[in-house]
Amino acid sequence: MMAEGRRIRLDLAYDGTDFSGWQRQPGQRTVQHVVETALSRIEGRDRVRARGAGRTDAGVHALGQVADARICTRLDDRALRSALGALFPGDLRPLAVTTAGDGFDACRDAVAKTYRYRLDRTPHGDPFVRRFALWHPHAMDRAALDDALARLPGRRDWAGFAGAASTARTTVRRLTEARYEEEPGAEAGVFTFTGDGFLNHMVRNLVGTLLDVARGRFGPERIDDVLTSRDRTRAGPTAPARGLWLVEVRYPWERGEPRTDGRPEDLRPGDAR
Amino acid sequence: MMAEGRRIRLDLAYDGTDFSGWQRQPGQRTVQHVVETALSRIEGRDRVRARGAGRTDAGVHALGQVADARICTRLDDRALRSALGALFPGDLRPLAVTTAGDGFDACRDAVAKTYRYRLDRTPHGDPFVRRFALWHPHAMDRAALDDALARLPGRRDWAGFAGAASTARTTVRRLTEARYEEEPGAEAGVFTFTGDGFLNHMVRNLVGTLLDVARGRFGPERIDDVLTSRDRTRAGPTAPARGLWLVEVRYPWERGEPRTDGRPEDLRPGDAR
Repeated sequence: MMAEGRRIRLDLAYDGTDFSGWQRQPGQRTVQHVVETALSRIEGRDRVRARGAGRTDAGVHALGQVADARICTRLDDRALRSALGALFPGDLRPLAVTTAGDGFDACRDAVAKTYRYRLDRTPHGDPFVRRFALWHPHAMDRAALDDALARLPGRRDWAGFAGAASTARTTVRRLTEARYEEEPGAEAGVFTFTGDGFLNHMVRNLVGTLLDVARGRFGPERIDDVLTSRDRTRAGPTAPARGLWLVEVRYPWERGEPRTDGRPEDLRPGDAR
Repeated sequence: MMAEGRRIRLDLAYDGTDFSGWQRQPGQRTVQHVVETALSRIEGRDRVRARGAGRTDAGVHALGQVADARICTRLDDRALRSALGALFPGDLRPLAVTTAGDGFDACRDAVAKTYRYRLDRTPHGDPFVRRFALWHPHAMDRAALDDALARLPGRRDWAGFAGAASTARTTVRRLTEARYEEEPGAEAGVFTFTGDGFLNHMVRNLVGTLLDVARGRFGPERIDDVLTSRDRTRAGPTAPARGLWLVEVRYPWERGEPRTDGRPEDLRPGDAR
């Protein structure tokens, strides 16, 4: 029998709370494991391999993770999405299944990713976003924060903001967007970061440092200091995983503006709009 | 020692997923138990009793539950709210603490309550609202649904929509509002019900019946049939608890329009607005 098959692109959303991140690890409930197991069940093969665009950490959420896999099933894309929807648990959903070019590699082909980091700014702590945001009721110096954010975009060596587990060959990445916005009424705040790639823990270390700047622990020039010194100990703490969302992965053949469609901002059960 | 004390009103929000409802039950994690335990810890007394306006079932959420309690602590309202915030778990938050008149009874004094029931209308099932909404991707006949909803408001005997566990002396209640709305883009739908009181399971049985009407299993006149016959077996199934929210309790001294501020509609991480 000829195993012809095809390569598919999978667009996935997940609540990362109860996953040990994307990457398969022995004995752990990971997104990759659940995706591969479902594909294997459909095909009746031992192991189907799925590659993810972003290796989200334990507890990190995704609105637009992209993966690819080579499959042999003759189910068309639509039927395959339905089958995956039935096999996946409620905290992992298949947004789309698309037949891709045979050479498609969700990770290597990605040219940009957008992450968001969400703050719960309510004084009491909103019980409905506690899985999805960091509760941060403290006063924030917006001028200092904006000053710090303005120092980030560019092609830089991010070693000072990389986690110890980072195994990347190079720590140079291009960041094209770094901003912070609050909703009217200021019950939620959202950081947005877009770049051609991110090191392990980079967004969470950036957020931890930016929050320290906003609280007055460091001046905005601390950003330059960490970048220049490449010294992780000069940066702020790693912000918790639960506020972090992978919202979009972009590929070179996709035109137009990135679809940063704002889902994390609107997550909380907020005021009527 | 004179136990003078004061009566307080507590406004509470909770994610009901991991609570066995409001009411204290031996060996169960209930909202009443957690509230009373926290108040007892603050006072160093054996038992402080808290009365809730609505006895929400297991899995039902609250954006605006109201409770009252008689306390002796000399912490002012603001400090007491902070203390409760520190003692409560993340899925239960104290929105406000207010000193009330000594005769205040959160349950007996309530003149109206508003419940919402939320549907997830996405084709794939949104992983971020699965604790807070019923996934209902099926086509809905809006004309039939609106016809059925229009038959509900009024002072009626709701015995046919009451759960078996209902212990109310009378099954007559006045319903003043019954409507269904979908967001633009129709990724979420919300039922709203306001009335002077609700029987056990009443909202969930109404929703189960209304969804059956919307799917064409019954005609809208089935509503009149259940009301007239008082026969629970003529109604639809009990909709799951997770979609139900107690959004507001109103008291006679509160003026103006009810604060149905739309939080459940905006729960999902939706499109940018």
